[in-house]
Amino acid sequence: MSLPLQDLLVLDLTRVLAGPYATMILADLGADVVKIEMPQTGDDARAFPPHLGGESAYFMSLNRNKRGMTLNLKSAAGKEVFFDLVRRADVVVENFRPGTMSRLGLDFTALQAVNPRIIYAAASGFGHTGPYSGRAAYDAIVQAMGGLMSVTGQEGGPPTRVGTSIGDITAGLFTTIGILTAVHHRAQSGVGQMVDVAMLDSQVAILENAIARYTVTGRVPAPIGNRHPSIIPFETFATADGSIMVAAGNDLLWRKLCAALETPSLADEPDFATNPQRADNYATLRPILAARFARRTTAAWLALLDQAGVPCGPINNVAQVLADPQVRAREMVVKVDHPTAGETTLPGTPIKLSATPASVRTPAPRLGEHTQEILRDLLHYDAARIATLEAAGAF
Amino acid sequence: MSLPLQDLLVLDLTRVLAGPYATMILADLGADVVKIEMPQTGDDARAFPPHLGGESAYFMSLNRNKRGMTLNLKSAAGKEVFFDLVRRADVVVENFRPGTMSRLGLDFTALQAVNPRIIYAAASGFGHTGPYSGRAAYDAIVQAMGGLMSVTGQEGGPPTRVGTSIGDITAGLFTTIGILTAVHHRAQSGVGQMVDVAMLDSQVAILENAIARYTVTGRVPAPIGNRHPSIIPFETFATADGSIMVAAGNDLLWRKLCAALETPSLADEPDFATNPQRADNYATLRPILAARFARRTTAAWLALLDQAGVPCGPINNVAQVLADPQVRAREMVVKVDHPTAGETTLPGTPIKLSATPASVRTPAPRLGEHTQEILRDLLHYDAARIATLEAAGAF
Repeated sequence: MSLPLQDLLVLDLTRVLAGPYATMILADLGADVVKIEMPQTGDDARAFPPHLGGESAYFMSLNRNKRGMTLNLKSAAGKEVFFDLVRRADVVVENFRPGTMSRLGLDFTALQAVNPRIIYAAASGFGHTGPYSGRAAYDAIVQAMGGLMSVTGQEGGPPTRVGTSIGDITAGLFTTIGILTAVHHRAQSGVGQMVDVAMLDSQVAILENAIARYTVTGRVPAPIGNRHPSIIPFETFATADGSIMVAAGNDLLWRKLCAALETPSLADEPDFATNPQRADNYATLRPILAARFARRTTAAWLALLDQAGVPCGPINNVAQVLADPQVRAREMVVKVDHPTAGETTLPGTPIKLSATPASVRTPAPRLGEHTQEILRDLLHYDAARIATLEAAGAF
Repeated sequence: MSLPLQDLLVLDLTRVLAGPYATMILADLGADVVKIEMPQTGDDARAFPPHLGGESAYFMSLNRNKRGMTLNLKSAAGKEVFFDLVRRADVVVENFRPGTMSRLGLDFTALQAVNPRIIYAAASGFGHTGPYSGRAAYDAIVQAMGGLMSVTGQEGGPPTRVGTSIGDITAGLFTTIGILTAVHHRAQSGVGQMVDVAMLDSQVAILENAIARYTVTGRVPAPIGNRHPSIIPFETFATADGSIMVAAGNDLLWRKLCAALETPSLADEPDFATNPQRADNYATLRPILAARFARRTTAAWLALLDQAGVPCGPINNVAQVLADPQVRAREMVVKVDHPTAGETTLPGTPIKLSATPASVRTPAPRLGEHTQEILRDLLHYDAARIATLEAAGAF
């Protein structure tokens, strides 16, 4: 099976989450991603619990489909190997704090000098320009600074951090888009360029609707819990055994909902017939609907509302997500065998391509697993040269 | 200034958020995005408040840099024009409910028949395969079903919806990556393919760490508020006038934090010296730190902690984000003049390219603004043909 990015060689210096997420997508789509780690320690995420057969589950989920080698980029011998790799590579990706690659003598200018076609992608907390450029960031810091927390949470409650590292992940996604764009441009121009993506910028980019609302109205958006700011009912209700999300996006769906709730006359009451009326009388309407939903289980309501064509869904926990028939049918849960950790469960790829589908083919590399193979087969070093480099502390 | 995707012609049938977000990124990067809307009504988002000079701020923020035309795809004359556009285009993007394009006679197979190079991207709630494929979804539904809500919220509190439409936005980002990947593959193979991205799949894909944790430990992740699950202190504290996010990611940063808090001896106390000790004694430690942070303002603590090199940040609201010096320096807030709405404020692009930077060049099109221009200059229709099509209800 051919893979759509199989002609791309990516040198991956990334650690932890934002960078590895970008290179994981490229690897899933077939790029030859060579993950380069410090000897002995490797990616910090190798130490993140929980572990399985000595391997971090966190690390394994982000580094499948990649090859792994060690290289001490602080040593002259390690740099020599790295520059040889850069001569052959299409893309270099790193997520160090800005300045780190310059101190190593490995910034974009240095790499471009040996390979004018190289694409250099840097994901960082605040970006490679601006007053905060040199500062360290974590996901929680950029979620706080970027405004996402200020619009997330229960109504009247505190700003709330999103429970997944959306600051890292969106930066990884924008980095991937930047890399593929630069690859496309290079096919025309013959030259590479630098892709500079900041976690903070990425947070601003995903606020869009909140920015539009604020700049036009002057009202600063605040958390409003699980309901829609202007469409009613479009929110969570407690059921007899849990809860349900219901989204009656227009007046027709409202009528269908009332029928499914076995109170069709509610739809025609003058206080509730149209969305503006429901908004004006929300305080009266909410308890009426809440009392209805309390009468049956979530499963019963889901069946009734699905049949009625009213958009709805359960509030699934992670165990329920992994068991969901649609998630299963879309191959969003995949298994891969790891030599020491055994069978591990990983998320699949959400990019479904008809002719050249992405896939999970290999487990994450053990530290330095492919060092010899890459030096021998990709760089064509002979045994004597490999031994000399090893003695010089290259890997 | 050359733009990296300026050679791509994208036909954009998308509405509301997930699809328009994907085509916005392509347009920012220079693609010629022709937004095709139903005559009279157009994109549903044109009706979303608030409005400025008759134009929706929500619509304007997502559709900058695009050209706009109307086309009634239910009419034979409209389809004729559409197929002519498909013959010239590189990419078609739609986010209808699966089945809609087939009913119009415009699915991938039909378009591929007139242009084997066409790339057909579909963003939908549940995807084009699987048991839920035909169902309607909204962002709130997939946030609920995809597990994100189950890990977001205050500790012990209810599952919480993320305050921005992350279900739509991540689907838009994965769609963009899929399109660029298919464009890259087409340069080698000469043929297009279908890109099928589901909002629900995208939610699963961004859970990754939670999936790894659950499948290894068997413990179902729940909301834990604003703190890190295992690193301490890495959370929000109230200050004299607001709050602050602090992330002391290792023992060295912990020592620096204690010094900045003017309680250096705390760092060496046996109960708190290492992260595992701080985790064991969190209930004792938290109030000590909280009392310290209450003594000064957020601004004062930010200055002290920045000087000490401890990662920290304010919890900014949207107004504060837009005023932030780093956000400003990175051009993440841009202004564009609209003929009726006047000067509007939009988020910039987070993909910073050194050689071919993306940009915001034109405001969102008014409904049908470029219909004549596209028929005349892109399709080379003469005035008589345009008049005939108009009489036949094409646009």
